[in-house]
Amino acid sequence: MTNILQRLTVGILLFPDVEVLDFAGPFEVFSRARLTPGIESRRSNESAPFQVFTVSKSTAKIIATGGLMVLPDYSFSNHPKIDLLVVPGGFGTRSLLTDQETLEWIRNVSSGARLTVSVCTGALLLTKAELLNGLEATTHWGAIELLESINQAGQHNIKVLSDKRFVDSGNVVTSAGVSAGIDMALHIVERMFGKAVADETATYIEYRRLHQ
Amino acid sequence: MTNILQRLTVGILLFPDVEVLDFAGPFEVFSRARLTPGIESRRSNESAPFQVFTVSKSTAKIIATGGLMVLPDYSFSNHPKIDLLVVPGGFGTRSLLTDQETLEWIRNVSSGARLTVSVCTGALLLTKAELLNGLEATTHWGAIELLESINQAGQHNIKVLSDKRFVDSGNVVTSAGVSAGIDMALHIVERMFGKAVADETATYIEYRRLHQ
Repeated sequence: MTNILQRLTVGILLFPDVEVLDFAGPFEVFSRARLTPGIESRRSNESAPFQVFTVSKSTAKIIATGGLMVLPDYSFSNHPKIDLLVVPGGFGTRSLLTDQETLEWIRNVSSGARLTVSVCTGALLLTKAELLNGLEATTHWGAIELLESINQAGQHNIKVLSDKRFVDSGNVVTSAGVSAGIDMALHIVERMFGKAVADETATYIEYRRLHQ
Repeated sequence: MTNILQRLTVGILLFPDVEVLDFAGPFEVFSRARLTPGIESRRSNESAPFQVFTVSKSTAKIIATGGLMVLPDYSFSNHPKIDLLVVPGGFGTRSLLTDQETLEWIRNVSSGARLTVSVCTGALLLTKAELLNGLEATTHWGAIELLESINQAGQHNIKVLSDKRFVDSGNVVTSAGVSAGIDMALHIVERMFGKAVADETATYIEYRRLHQ
């Protein structure tokens, strides 16, 4: 097997009070996916289709919800090109709803990415970044009303769906709360590399997939 | 409601090449559990039954599998008393199988804890720390044979079970691979605070529980 696989870059946004599983679930799925099945293939990146890293406003440590301390790999100003942008949620999204630097960064990166995805209340940020205009979307069950009110106030014309594990609107995919990000990430793996690769990755992490 | 809830401390062991979801899953469950249901109760620690922190040999940054950089809250020498010790897995466990400092720390902390739990190949470390002697246990499906061989070589008399999501052996609970740690953690919440609290925590993180 040749070693010329061009890995897709996955940039995961971090911010203060980001929900841990919102970013750790997709991080796990994308970083442990392999085109070659089995345990041994996980010992190297040879058949890894994704290169995953974290990005934040600066590279200073981030304190996630519950107190987990994470060091971002890159800042807004020095990260590599991002093919797949992951925007997680958490209570920390609330103060970012009016943070133009973050919203513009999301909009700019998304415009050059193949795909932009959100987990949980990350959908609120995609909405404010104008990335969900005219599309179907979902979020954490506890934030459906908030998403709808932001939608209506900003005339984004989003069709807000509840009771969906994730909503695939083409270039933008949104998921329900927290652990639903794992299913969304596996769905993206399936879209890009097929069901066998996604199912085998789920088997590796002993996750039973949910589609809705 | 009074504010005198005595929180149980949850110490999560970190080490180089620890599997991300192995520690992030239990971190999420224990740090987001609340005795008062709903969204609002998650905005404070008032009804939080657990106080969760990470511990490593030193407080230097840990590079987890896939490259996630985490800063431990405490080192082996300065952490608070641990009521519930969580030992995650990952390829990083292999070099710890002969690391006496780590094995002794696990054994010592466990002897003063109410409960010791492992996720995935964390069970290999519990075995080497002599904590599973004579008990039933499980691990990641890809490490069942390795656990059995360590068991037999060390005459630990463990009954190794496969096809179990988690195995509750009283003061020690082991789980299967990676995402099974979420189910194990919810099981611990249920054991300590009842099914309603565990189910509500699962609902909050939109996780559908698996019991086997």
